[in-house]
This record gives sequence, structure tokens and C-alpha cells, in this order.
Amino acid sequence: MNAPAGTAGLAALSMTEAADAIARGEITAAALLESCLARIEAHDGRVNAFIRLDRDAAREAAAAADRARAAGRPLGPLHGVPMAHKDMYYRAGKVSTCGSRIRRDFVPQVTATVLERLDAAGAIDLGTLNMAEFAQNPTGHNAHFGHCHNPWNLPYCTGGSSSGSGAGVAARFFTAALGSDTGGSIRLPATICGVTGLKATQTRVSRFGAMPLSFSADNVGPLVRTARDAARFLRVVAGHDPRDPTSAREPVPDYEAALTGDIRGLRIAVPQEWFFDGADSVVVDAFEAALGVLKARGATVERVSAPSLRAVAAYGALLSRVEGAAIHANWMRERPGDYSIHLSARLYGGYAIPGHLYVEALARRGPILRRFCAEALGRFDLVATPTLRTRVPTLAETDIDADPRNWSRFMAVSANTRPFNYLGLPAISVPCGFDDRGLPIGLQLAGRPFAEARVLRAADAFQRDTDWHRRMPPLG
Amino acid sequence: MNAPAGTAGLAALSMTEAADAIARGEITAAALLESCLARIEAHDGRVNAFIRLDRDAAREAAAAADRARAAGRPLGPLHGVPMAHKDMYYRAGKVSTCGSRIRRDFVPQVTATVLERLDAAGAIDLGTLNMAEFAQNPTGHNAHFGHCHNPWNLPYCTGGSSSGSGAGVAARFFTAALGSDTGGSIRLPATICGVTGLKATQTRVSRFGAMPLSFSADNVGPLVRTARDAARFLRVVAGHDPRDPTSAREPVPDYEAALTGDIRGLRIAVPQEWFFDGADSVVVDAFEAALGVLKARGATVERVSAPSLRAVAAYGALLSRVEGAAIHANWMRERPGDYSIHLSARLYGGYAIPGHLYVEALARRGPILRRFCAEALGRFDLVATPTLRTRVPTLAETDIDADPRNWSRFMAVSANTRPFNYLGLPAISVPCGFDDRGLPIGLQLAGRPFAEARVLRAADAFQRDTDWHRRMPPLG
Repeated sequence: MNAPAGTAGLAALSMTEAADAIARGEITAAALLESCLARIEAHDGRVNAFIRLDRDAAREAAAAADRARAAGRPLGPLHGVPMAHKDMYYRAGKVSTCGSRIRRDFVPQVTATVLERLDAAGAIDLGTLNMAEFAQNPTGHNAHFGHCHNPWNLPYCTGGSSSGSGAGVAARFFTAALGSDTGGSIRLPATICGVTGLKATQTRVSRFGAMPLSFSADNVGPLVRTARDAARFLRVVAGHDPRDPTSAREPVPDYEAALTGDIRGLRIAVPQEWFFDGADSVVVDAFEAALGVLKARGATVERVSAPSLRAVAAYGALLSRVEGAAIHANWMRERPGDYSIHLSARLYGGYAIPGHLYVEALARRGPILRRFCAEALGRFDLVATPTLRTRVPTLAETDIDADPRNWSRFMAVSANTRPFNYLGLPAISVPCGFDDRGLPIGLQLAGRPFAEARVLRAADAFQRDTDWHRRMPPLG
Repeated sequence: MNAPAGTAGLAALSMTEAADAIARGEITAAALLESCLARIEAHDGRVNAFIRLDRDAAREAAAAADRARAAGRPLGPLHGVPMAHKDMYYRAGKVSTCGSRIRRDFVPQVTATVLERLDAAGAIDLGTLNMAEFAQNPTGHNAHFGHCHNPWNLPYCTGGSSSGSGAGVAARFFTAALGSDTGGSIRLPATICGVTGLKATQTRVSRFGAMPLSFSADNVGPLVRTARDAARFLRVVAGHDPRDPTSAREPVPDYEAALTGDIRGLRIAVPQEWFFDGADSVVVDAFEAALGVLKARGATVERVSAPSLRAVAAYGALLSRVEGAAIHANWMRERPGDYSIHLSARLYGGYAIPGHLYVEALARRGPILRRFCAEALGRFDLVATPTLRTRVPTLAETDIDADPRNWSRFMAVSANTRPFNYLGLPAISVPCGFDDRGLPIGLQLAGRPFAEARVLRAADAFQRDTDWHRRMPPLG
């Protein structure tokens, strides 16, 4: 198999392309890894996606993967593909910084269930990735490990909090990366870096061994290049885990089998509230063009009213503020100076929220989900929105440590992703164009609880007729 | 079968005695009911246990029960026994006041799962019982429906919040009653009225259709006369309920089969912290005598240190204050004057508790439960304490509407029961003596999660060698 056009060589292959090529013996895991390592060597000095790169261990793992194939041993669905993960997934005995000064030397004693499942599927782990401090910002700023930079244009945001995951997949440093999504932290770096990011239904993926940020809304999921990659990755990591009693017992389907390309009759709703307030026209234009692609394949699109969205936004913010305050209470008491200015400022606000409002936000969640589903998913299969309603901002424009007046621009970044965390619905972001400054734009598709297969089918169908996800950032 | 000695006639039979006598055809449900109705007629004017008495419907149900037996139809384990329930279990189409002015005319559209299960087992429902306003006090005061009075001595507390349930079972108005227990509301009226009350493991019994008070700590359970009654009652009402997703899926054993009388080798721990602070000596003496009865049957008793109890008390109060504030938020905003003084005062306090402390109280629950179990249930099968550590107070002594200085005496009432709500452990109270003013004293036995069978076996063994539970209040 020939590598796709571009300057990335084998590193330009998507996760599923690479895994299938390795399985068929067309490429070796070692050659793929070297291609990725060369990219990292050449460009990560400017992108800053990695916190720790385990070159030697990865080379040993790749060689072992190639020996296993040569020996005819059964191969997992991710055999030999290089990945790296947001530095908040614990691996026993390895430092997990959580992007923070406070956990700079933290060595967990357990390994996250998702890492164990990826290991068992044959994936190769290159190391740990940059992220917002404690996964608490939507932009990619990090005062302790340096900001992560957008491969499409270095002064611009990567999106956060899974900044290194988005930037590294876009830069072809690795084929896939775990992110985590509590208010958009998978989908935002996906849209902003021009890759594909999937947040599944709340509770679909085990959170054991993942740093908690806000129990009620935390999700584990992949940043990859295609919907097909996301489908295969999700099947590996999804499913009940006795070590995370909150993980769902719902059966895990073969998501890849659902990628038929057939979306005839698929009914898509576009809510008129919330998602377009203050949107940039270049984003709306790309979004409308993306709807056109889906319609051309036989989907129908209808504008709907979903007034429940106002309550969703208010309650969702409340849950994560209170839970964040609880998780950080001891450190905020004992080591407040070890937080960045903007994170301690956000956390302080959480300590003043009365408990009964938190209970109300939890208690209203079920009824509001039912109401939103009646408004927007009763007669429809999917909801479509822009993932980010504005053009991608620069790091400087959203730096609230430098200037608190950047606060509103900073908060606006997660406006379109956050509702699906409170609602708990599965949502994907796929690249759907570029703005007038050459930064990516994303299409967000969300579905009913546990309807990941349908969400993925629509995203895959879209990618069959578009090539936004194949474009490579001009890193030189 | 002859009725036991005393002036109560057939109403003196315990629930299981009565059900078995009906099943064997020794007595009729109609005769038993008339005996109960006569007691109610004679004494409830002073006791005030009932909020609504459905005489005619009960007579029809008793007649139908007797016809069913005569026709040879299969009989449930509670066939024909008269009960009445705390007025917070919803029955579709019937008023459920929750002991409040606010819900004085509330007609629910659903029927509580526990009522459906009791109906299916053949029990006869006499009506609804007095209770603390919204189940929010441990004494039995009620500003809207009148205080409930202790059948042993009318100026004394009944204990709450299931005041009518405890007083009515003690007065032989019915054989059994549902109470609810969030901080001791089953076990307190049980101990104070001299009957048996069981709070099972948190989530053991469905709460669907029961007024919520504090989701994290609410329990549904029986006030009855004997541990055998509690065993049979629990088997009827326990078990998973799809309408209450929080209800446990743990299998429900045949609790009565566990009542072998054999407690040889049973290891009982008596924690030295918390439970005896400020205890009255007459209570401690009765408690020690009760331990002697268990030892005489072959149990061993050891004093242990359980320092985790301080954290238990603090966190437990926090959960119920915050959840109570959330549940009452709209009414407290719109109809504050419809609450009694003491309840609105308690609720107001809940609105100032920060959410992160509430999250902390929930998050610490598992670790603290593990710690308490290691301290007090690792080498032991049961924990024993007095249910109420002081003598029974009078209604006047604990009336905080009349005098706020009664607050500390009021709050002290639930000190020994409340820890097992935060811990979620099963706990029973059985009568174990009388104080120097002739008011009952209770023994509390608690076990590991889902160890109800063991708790019941010990309580039953105790009742085989004592007759405190057979004594009848001197109502004349």
C-alpha cells in the first residue's frame, strides 16, 4: 500500500488504515512508528503536544508487534498503531501530571481501564500529552508545561482541554489519542485542530483510572482522523467495567459494521436556540454547506425550537463548578499558589454555590433530557450544530491570565459543546471546512442516548463525500 | 387459638401470629379487624395516631379476605392482617398529606411500590397515620394534625418521624405499619413506643411512590411487634423495583427461615465513641442487661473503638440538610408561612451549605463506610447500641416551637440512629426494658450491608428470652 499524498509518509495513514495495513503485512509497525517519531522530532518543538515521549519503549513495542505478526499470533484491532494519551490516564508506576504543577510528580498505582483495553487491542503507547491544567480550560493554555499550539497556525488555540491530543493527531504525530470531555474537551480540540473527536453517551466508557474533573459530566473518548477510526476505537474501550460502577451495562455493538454510507431518510434537527447566538458567518456558511452534503446523501434537515437549552446551559455549568470545587478543595486550601491564576479564579467561584442548587441541577437532569429529546430528537434522529460557533481565536485573545477582559471570549469557546455533557448525549465533531484565516471548522452531530452507531454512520457518510479530514496542516 | 392475655383481644396478636391464625382458619380477618377498630375507637382520641381511618373499606377488604380463604384461594403471607401506614406512601386517588399543611389536599396519581406489594400479600389497609411534618422531626410533634401521644404515658413523645406508626402498633390499633427512616424515623418511634422497627440496608426497599426527604438516606421499612414480623414484612416489600432505579438487585432471602434462635459464636461489637455520650444510666443499665441476654445465648460482646463515627455524624447531617433544602426550595420560596416554625427554621439552615461540602459528604461515604466496617464489623458480626441514649423526653421538653432552648434536647433524640443512615447499614430496634418513668427503652443492632438476616436472627433470639415486646401500654 502506498502512503497517501503529503509529506507525512506512513504517518499520514489514519488509525484504521494503518492497523489494516499492518494486519495485511503491507507496512510494519516499526516503519510506521519511525515515520511518526520523525514528525514529532521535526515539529513538536513548536507544537508542544507531548509532556513525555517514551521513544525507546515505543520502539520495543513496535518491534514486538512486528514479531507477533510474523509469528502468526492473533492480532487485536489496533495492532501496532502508535497512540499517545492526554496526561490524565493513569498507568501504574508512570508519572501522570494532569497538566498541573500540583501533580507534576504524581505516580499512580493503578492503570486506567481504557489504557488496559487499548494495550490488549495491540495499540502502542508513545507517551503522555499536553492538556489544560487539570483539564479545566477549553483553549489549550498551560502555564506549567507551556501552551499547546495549533499545527494549522501556531499562534492560534488548539482548543482544550485535550490540547495535545488534538494538535498531535492533526500534526500526524500519532494515529489516535485519548481525550476527555466534560464540557467539550474532546470535541473542541477536534474541531479547532481539524480532526474527528467523539464523546459517547455519558457512562458508555469506563472512567476508572482517569483523573476526575466533574463526575457527572466526565467522558473518556478518542481524537482520531475519521469516523471509522472513532468507531473502531470506541468498540475497544466501551463497555461495563466492574472497577467503574457508573459505567453502563448496555451492550457494545460493532460500530464499524454500522458505517454503511446509507443515510437515506435520516432526519436531522437544527435547534434554533443557543447554538447560533453570536456565531461567525464563515462558520455558519460552512455548517450549511455540510448540511447540504448530508442532504445530497438523502438526509432531511429541519430547523426546530428547543427552548430547554437555556436550562441545560445553566445547570450544566453549576454541576461542573461544584464538583470541581469539591475535587480541588484540599489543594485549594493548602497549595493555592500552585494553580494558574485563571484556574484558581474559576475554582474559587465554585465554593460559593449552595448545595441545594447542585442537587436541583442533578434532579432536573432527567426531566430536562426528556424534554430536550421531545423537542429535538422526538421526530428526528440527530441534532446538528457547529462545534465551535466562532472562528478559532488566538492564544493571546483567550489568555485570561494576561488580561481578565478575555474572559467572555474564553468562556464562549465551549458554548456549543457543553449542552451535550449535561444532557449526556453522544456527540461527534468532524472537520467541515476552514475559516478565512485558514483555521478548521467543525460539524457537531449528536444523537439519542447510546445511539453512537447512528452518529458514527452519519459522520462517516459525510466523510465519504468530503476530504476536510484528509487535509494536512502546513507544518513544512 | 386463644388471644394472648391482656385487654386487647385479637388485636393483641402480632402480625405473624395473626396472619398464621387466619391462614389456619382459627380466627377471621373480620373479627381481628373489629378488635382493632374497637381499640382505635376507644383510644385514638387521646393517642392521635390516625390522619385518615377508612373503616368501611377495611371492613369490605376483611370480608373479602375471609371469603377468599373460605373459597380455598391461595393466600399471601400477610393475608387478612390489618395495617395502616405513615401518610407519605402514595396511593393513587387518595390524599397523602405528608403530615403537612402544604400537601393537605395532595392526591397522588401513582401508588407506592411497597403498598402494591403489601396489597398483593393480602394485607388490609386501614388508612393513613400521623407523622412529623414532611417526616422532618424525631419527636412526633405535628403543628398541623396535632401531636401524636405516647400510649405508655400520653404527655411523652412518641418519637418520630413515624409517630403514628409507632404509637399505633404499640396501642394494638393494627399489627404493622410502614414507617420511613432517614435519621432514625423508624427506629426512634419503635424504641420510644416499645415496638420493633427495622431499617434495612440503604436501597434494599423500593422508594417509588414514597415522599422523598433526603434521597441519600431515605429508607422504607416496618414498625411491628416482633423480629419475626419484621422478617416476614421485609421479605414482602424488599427487592429490586424498575420504578426505583436506585433499589438494589441483591437477591431477597427468606428472612424468617434465618430465625433459628441459634446465635452461638455471634460476635457483637459495642463502639465506645459517640453512642454513650451523655447517656442516662437507666438506659445503659437496660442495654447491658440486654447484652447479657445475648451472651447467655452464646454471643460474645466486645467494646471497640470506632473513631470514624465523628465524621459519620457530621457528614450525615450535611446530606440531609442539603437534600431537604433542595426538595423544599419552591415551597419555601412561595409558601414559607405554611411550614411550622421549627421546620422552616431547620430548612433555612440548609440553603447556606456550599455544594462542594455536599459533594464531599457523598464522596467520603464509601471510604468512611469501609473504615467503620474495619473498625467495628471486621472481626464482628453486629454492632449493638442503645437506640435512644436518654430517657424518653416529654412533648413539652422537646417542643422547639414553644421554646428554642429545647433545640439541643430535640436534636439529641436521633443521635444514636442517624449514623446508620449515612453508613447505609441495616439496623433494628427491639424493646429491652423500661425507664424509671415507665417509658420503653430499645436495643439497636446493626450489621454489614445486606446482612438483614443476621440482624433479624439476633433480634429474634433476644425476643425468645424476653417479653418486653409483649408488654401492653396501660391505655385502659
